[in-house]
Amino acid sequence: MKSNKIAPKTLPGFMELLPSEQLVFEKVAQVLRSVYSNYGFYPLDTPILEYSQILMAKAGGETEKQIYRFNKGDTDLTMRFDLTVPLAKYVAGHANELAFPFKRYQIGKVYRGERAQRGRFREFYQADIDIIGDGQLSTINDAEIPSIIYDTFTQLGIKDFTIRINNRKILSGFFNIMGLSENTVDILRIVDKLEKIGRDNVIEELINLKVSPEDAETILNFVNAKGSNQEKLDYISIYKGKDEVFDAGFEELALVLNYIHSFGVPESNYTIDYSIARGLDYYTGTVYETMINAHPEIGSVCSGGRYDNLAEYYTDRKLPGVGISIGLTRLFYVLSTMKAFEESNFSAADVMIIPMTEDLSYAIETSSALRKSGLRTQIYFESKKVKQKMAYANKTNMPCVLLLGEDEEAAGRVTVKFLETGEQVTDTLEVVTGLIQACTDKKHQAYVIQNMNV
Amino acid sequence: MKSNKIAPKTLPGFMELLPSEQLVFEKVAQVLRSVYSNYGFYPLDTPILEYSQILMAKAGGETEKQIYRFNKGDTDLTMRFDLTVPLAKYVAGHANELAFPFKRYQIGKVYRGERAQRGRFREFYQADIDIIGDGQLSTINDAEIPSIIYDTFTQLGIKDFTIRINNRKILSGFFNIMGLSENTVDILRIVDKLEKIGRDNVIEELINLKVSPEDAETILNFVNAKGSNQEKLDYISIYKGKDEVFDAGFEELALVLNYIHSFGVPESNYTIDYSIARGLDYYTGTVYETMINAHPEIGSVCSGGRYDNLAEYYTDRKLPGVGISIGLTRLFYVLSTMKAFEESNFSAADVMIIPMTEDLSYAIETSSALRKSGLRTQIYFESKKVKQKMAYANKTNMPCVLLLGEDEEAAGRVTVKFLETGEQVTDTLEVVTGLIQACTDKKHQAYVIQNMNV
Repeated sequence: MKSNKIAPKTLPGFMELLPSEQLVFEKVAQVLRSVYSNYGFYPLDTPILEYSQILMAKAGGETEKQIYRFNKGDTDLTMRFDLTVPLAKYVAGHANELAFPFKRYQIGKVYRGERAQRGRFREFYQADIDIIGDGQLSTINDAEIPSIIYDTFTQLGIKDFTIRINNRKILSGFFNIMGLSENTVDILRIVDKLEKIGRDNVIEELINLKVSPEDAETILNFVNAKGSNQEKLDYISIYKGKDEVFDAGFEELALVLNYIHSFGVPESNYTIDYSIARGLDYYTGTVYETMINAHPEIGSVCSGGRYDNLAEYYTDRKLPGVGISIGLTRLFYVLSTMKAFEESNFSAADVMIIPMTEDLSYAIETSSALRKSGLRTQIYFESKKVKQKMAYANKTNMPCVLLLGEDEEAAGRVTVKFLETGEQVTDTLEVVTGLIQACTDKKHQAYVIQNMNV
Repeated sequence: MKSNKIAPKTLPGFMELLPSEQLVFEKVAQVLRSVYSNYGFYPLDTPILEYSQILMAKAGGETEKQIYRFNKGDTDLTMRFDLTVPLAKYVAGHANELAFPFKRYQIGKVYRGERAQRGRFREFYQADIDIIGDGQLSTINDAEIPSIIYDTFTQLGIKDFTIRINNRKILSGFFNIMGLSENTVDILRIVDKLEKIGRDNVIEELINLKVSPEDAETILNFVNAKGSNQEKLDYISIYKGKDEVFDAGFEELALVLNYIHSFGVPESNYTIDYSIARGLDYYTGTVYETMINAHPEIGSVCSGGRYDNLAEYYTDRKLPGVGISIGLTRLFYVLSTMKAFEESNFSAADVMIIPMTEDLSYAIETSSALRKSGLRTQIYFESKKVKQKMAYANKTNMPCVLLLGEDEEAAGRVTVKFLETGEQVTDTLEVVTGLIQACTDKKHQAYVIQNMNV
């Protein structure tokens, strides 16, 4: 007989996790929220749907093709494709009600109808933080961002990463000095390919652009400056005094480096990199990229920078800012495929009660007491054999089960069994609660990323 | 001069909160997540967009008119209008990978293009929990739900609420016994209006439905049973033995009441109410509504019940369940208009550092130490007068500021000023950290709902 059921399919490019994977994802998101909150950022939530006119104020080209846009009644609607444009709208619309600098984080879904392929998502989470000033914003904010990136990745369990820092004014000023300012965009695009295509090919492409071989060498030496951060600063100091933009960028970068040190970020986790530029028409000062050292193939996992004017399409008010973004869904996907997480460490409850008596009152009263002690507690209510109940506990990665039979109830005791070790203890609820809490604390303190193989 | 700016408008019916309001909303959502987790529910996240064929499997009438549905390329897409249909798809699609009973909570946005009016939202959060069984699900799960509702509302700070409980089988069985089973739907619809239109009008409408005056009296007496829960059970026990469906419902309700007591829910917070039926074609057993006693005009703030078959449109597998839902955005809106929250208790940071020296190293190092102690710490980096910095701290509801001048730095001390009391203390960072933590702990322990005026 043919079934008339509808196949329960999920759209391609739309991530849908199994329960234990979702627990891991929530933990990752929780680490991000916790770090951002530690620095005094407000959470923000904005609509997923907006007037197309608002979201498309700036967009064009690729963005326009990828967006989810439709009419409902007379209204032209678009699903947001990033969190920056909605932020611009929000700040412009509420400028008189906000206190500046306005620091907000947002972890939310965005939509892009990209070509579906493995690891590419059409619905995905971005995790953004931004600090927005009213008219002006101190450069010292730019030094706080690497500290936030550092806390984020170390608290996730990643230690061997490098925050690459540059300042767009240094690049612009340098090309001014070289007399190549008209070609800045093209040159940077070529230089950006250095790691992919190698030094010789880059020089060849630069020469094709009518850059002299000597200038091509100078450019490559500049963007490839080696040594400590101080040495890299010293290396380009020969250009000081020749161009105002360069000098401003140099001072900003020196200040940022000075204060990153005060924030306590280890020197091994950040480096000046004169080759990074990020979005060519958006950022105007400090720019950041973050590489996981053992996995350069992932690309930057956290990027951003300083911009002069957040909301120029919506307001005359000048709103400079600095921010970074993590492509959370993609990062989670990549880490999952690397088996960086130990899913078996994650369970929806800290303890599962297996009642072995007809009447469940004792089990229920025990569950309430455990919850009051802060332990996430599930009772297995179904009438199954003990073996099936244990199989459920194993399948759901329960750290332990509480076995409550007639003997336990009569004696006012409980029996706990830890599933990993097989250890079994019968004692008062108070003693057993302590044992479970110790086990749970250990799990909570563990980093969500366990195996970077680095 | 005419501005060429686009007005930064948000769509009507789409809630967008100011920062301090958003902090309150997050706290409310956090209480819900915490309670649901305490009972061992998995978090779940499903796409906001799905194939229209999936979401519209059952829908019709009002739903069809209200949905956000559109084509992208050849694909017919719909934005989810509840969290139940996506859950059904999810469980049907992953049935072989899930462990049953599957307990999940989901707090997510849903979309309904209702007529825009005050307090009605087109994008809004629902907070759902469901327990799904494979083939069968113990009735004792139905007794756990009121305990979860109780924890949710008491932990939010609402004490005077009533969970109304009924069982659909009791109603069906009663109407079978009365020989009125064909009119059940119409009768319940009329009885449901009792509070609105009064007893006499209900009787009149029942008589118009060709119910005899005597039967109308009997129906009204039945659904209006008074007294303790035990008395209400006793009151209808005269119908026992006359109809199988009635008897099953009676046994279920008695069992549920027995175990609600074990869960420790106070008798004053739940009551049998034979008049409630909820969605007439969906629920098949226990049903719940939750009323805030001083505000009946809000209607039920948390409703749900037992259903026989979650995913019949997608699978032959029988998946019975029990669940409840909170219309979170609407509830938040209603509580806000009642001024139930103390927004001034909420700040994005626990302490703001105001540096009073040119060099900010001491301020930055102090901030890192505070964050390590678990205090959310913001530094005010901008070059403004101290008065403006204090105005910022006040506007953002900071509990306290840390004033760091040359004297403090030279002596290795810090000065804290608590904004509510004006109290100012200069001491070591360790001592001051303790003071701030005490202040913060007090705020964290406070209920998010402070003024129900009940």
